Amino acid sequence: MPVPIHAGETPSPRPLTLGLIGGGQLAKMTAQAAAQLGLATAILERTQHTPASGLAHHCLLGDWDQPADLLRLAALSDVLTLENEFVDAEALAVLERHGHRLRPGSGTVKIVQDKLWQKQAIAEEGIAMPRFADAPSKTAALAAAHAFGWPVVLKKRRNGYDGKGNATLRSAADLDAAWQQLNGDQNALFVESWFSFEREIAVMVTRPEQGSAALYPVVETVQKDHICHVVRAPGTLPTTIQERASEMAQRAVAAVGGIGTFGVEMFLAPDGTLALNELAPRVHNSGHYTIEACECSQFENHVRAVMGWPLGSPRMRAPAAVMINLLGAGPGPGLPSGLDRALAVPGASLHLYGKTTSTRGRKMGHVTALGNTTDEAYAIARRAADALVFGTPG
Amino acid sequence: MPVPIHAGETPSPRPLTLGLIGGGQLAKMTAQAAAQLGLATAILERTQHTPASGLAHHCLLGDWDQPADLLRLAALSDVLTLENEFVDAEALAVLERHGHRLRPGSGTVKIVQDKLWQKQAIAEEGIAMPRFADAPSKTAALAAAHAFGWPVVLKKRRNGYDGKGNATLRSAADLDAAWQQLNGDQNALFVESWFSFEREIAVMVTRPEQGSAALYPVVETVQKDHICHVVRAPGTLPTTIQERASEMAQRAVAAVGGIGTFGVEMFLAPDGTLALNELAPRVHNSGHYTIEACECSQFENHVRAVMGWPLGSPRMRAPAAVMINLLGAGPGPGLPSGLDRALAVPGASLHLYGKTTSTRGRKMGHVTALGNTTDEAYAIARRAADALVFGTPG
Repeated sequence: MPVPIHAGETPSPRPLTLGLIGGGQLAKMTAQAAAQLGLATAILERTQHTPASGLAHHCLLGDWDQPADLLRLAALSDVLTLENEFVDAEALAVLERHGHRLRPGSGTVKIVQDKLWQKQAIAEEGIAMPRFADAPSKTAALAAAHAFGWPVVLKKRRNGYDGKGNATLRSAADLDAAWQQLNGDQNALFVESWFSFEREIAVMVTRPEQGSAALYPVVETVQKDHICHVVRAPGTLPTTIQERASEMAQRAVAAVGGIGTFGVEMFLAPDGTLALNELAPRVHNSGHYTIEACECSQFENHVRAVMGWPLGSPRMRAPAAVMINLLGAGPGPGLPSGLDRALAVPGASLHLYGKTTSTRGRKMGHVTALGNTTDEAYAIARRAADALVFGTPG
Repeated sequence: MPVPIHAGETPSPRPLTLGLIGGGQLAKMTAQAAAQLGLATAILERTQHTPASGLAHHCLLGDWDQPADLLRLAALSDVLTLENEFVDAEALAVLERHGHRLRPGSGTVKIVQDKLWQKQAIAEEGIAMPRFADAPSKTAALAAAHAFGWPVVLKKRRNGYDGKGNATLRSAADLDAAWQQLNGDQNALFVESWFSFEREIAVMVTRPEQGSAALYPVVETVQKDHICHVVRAPGTLPTTIQERASEMAQRAVAAVGGIGTFGVEMFLAPDGTLALNELAPRVHNSGHYTIEACECSQFENHVRAVMGWPLGSPRMRAPAAVMINLLGAGPGPGLPSGLDRALAVPGASLHLYGKTTSTRGRKMGHVTALGNTTDEAYAIARRAADALVFGTPG
């Protein structure tokens, strides 16, 4: 046979393995980056067919809130990380007590997954953000609203995402309905003052255990129904604002002791005031553009950081990049219609997550394009995105 | 639980699956590209731990020269392709007789895997190449050498790669030893005239079933001991030579009815004469730079072509790129020493293939860097490559 079976190719010691808690698209793109660096990956997920399941060397079925299941994953892994911030921090702490290397650590996840604690930790660093107050009761919520002035936003402290878990109160008359909607008698809530922003911006930060963080460009994000739709990189903001935003993002991640890639979302007021909205202790939708646009993507830098390896450069390889999310239009299969037309758009990089089914609003993929300007890149990405339909609109 | 298990997430019909015959680094990088487009992959390999094995949804152990094993892979796959040209074409033809979609087809592989037939097919198109002749006997070899003039190269018609299977004859006195070295009584051989080249160049071509081929830039390759060491893209050749090279490459792939990405290697003489050396019916080492450097990589375009999808743009995203191969220095593990230093080189994109063991000269990974010039890119890639050592030099 012409292709040699290498002599001495014996069953080797287990390859260096990164354990991923969760198997969605963020885990998939992280697994891709890990594979490029020669690492094996293992995932823990609750269902068999997930975006990352085909790309991992080991796929465990289980519940990531159960220490026993996390320990099964840890037994296969040299380092563990997570793709969502909702994993029970107490369960994660069990991993650490057993001597496993988890990055970011359970202490960081514990603070970040409770938005009130997250905000307290960041505020203690003197980082600007909308005012906030705990709302253990309707009385406390009202008191905060009176102190901040209407409108205010009532929010769940835990498990909110993509706007789920928020309710805006324009006056005291809205409180009862909002309290019921968020089930305030069961869920811990807090109140946040209303911030009239002109733009939403985001910064991806990769923080290593030692040394300087990698700071990605400040990007502008366009949200619709609280879901990230478009990311423009770099943002067209004055340098001073970009520098302030970068510095705030870096300090916020340090404030929670974060290790790895974090997404930091901020508001920009018309007068140039910046306020930190929230951070995610993981790779983030607003950093997907970095796969094509940066020398080292948010995913590769996350892998490097959690492995304890030197970080790569977050520098952009092109003057501008735009990412557009591909959301499900309704129920249907995971592969879209219009693929031929989308693939035919020169310069559009298509990412399909390989989900088995589409539902309305579900993140099914994204498109990135580079250009000399964000407008040029947007036009390319838009053409490709508009060609694709996931599921049947209903 | 906060992250929803999507209602209606039932065991779905099998995802669209690309079957890869072989599981080495070429299959790995093809699987990465397939995953980005939402495809599942299945591989057939002879050993359990291969670069692609962790990235495929299905890994079959078997012998790709056995139709039964190929048919097991085909049962999991919608489309089949291959990462090496040594698979028995008759076995591949069985797949087609069973109605499976194989790209490139067995007819192409059959011609290409016999270098004499490959050269005949290309010569019939009038494409310039060194003179060649069948050498079924020593007498025939001598006759050809006399016709061409010394030196000549005696080559195996099948299963040669990276210079294995070649012997240079400076005079008739060298024939006996060369014949014995290549085992000419067992192996079909041919004779090729000596071509005094100044440079070696290569062009990656992705040829779709319908429409125009995607032509990647003409690159310069530096071979050492018949193994590709460095690729510089684009080459610094006069436009007219580049255009001739592109046209020759495209016609050569068409001459063998190729579908998918093909690597076409050429010689350039000091007087500007071009001669086609050989083509590979697969993604190719001289196209690895396209992952970072081009709008659509050779791997993604291969996937697109074999799936019957529109091709992406082969345009470069940067003025210049350089790829340097990482070869094993000796026996040892698959992960190199010096990783920290290599990862710390800004702008160097490291690809480690995840092989379980290193042996001397084995392709263990590669580094790509972009730049404004190939010299700039080379300096970056060189620094990273020089930091890495695979195995113990001996």
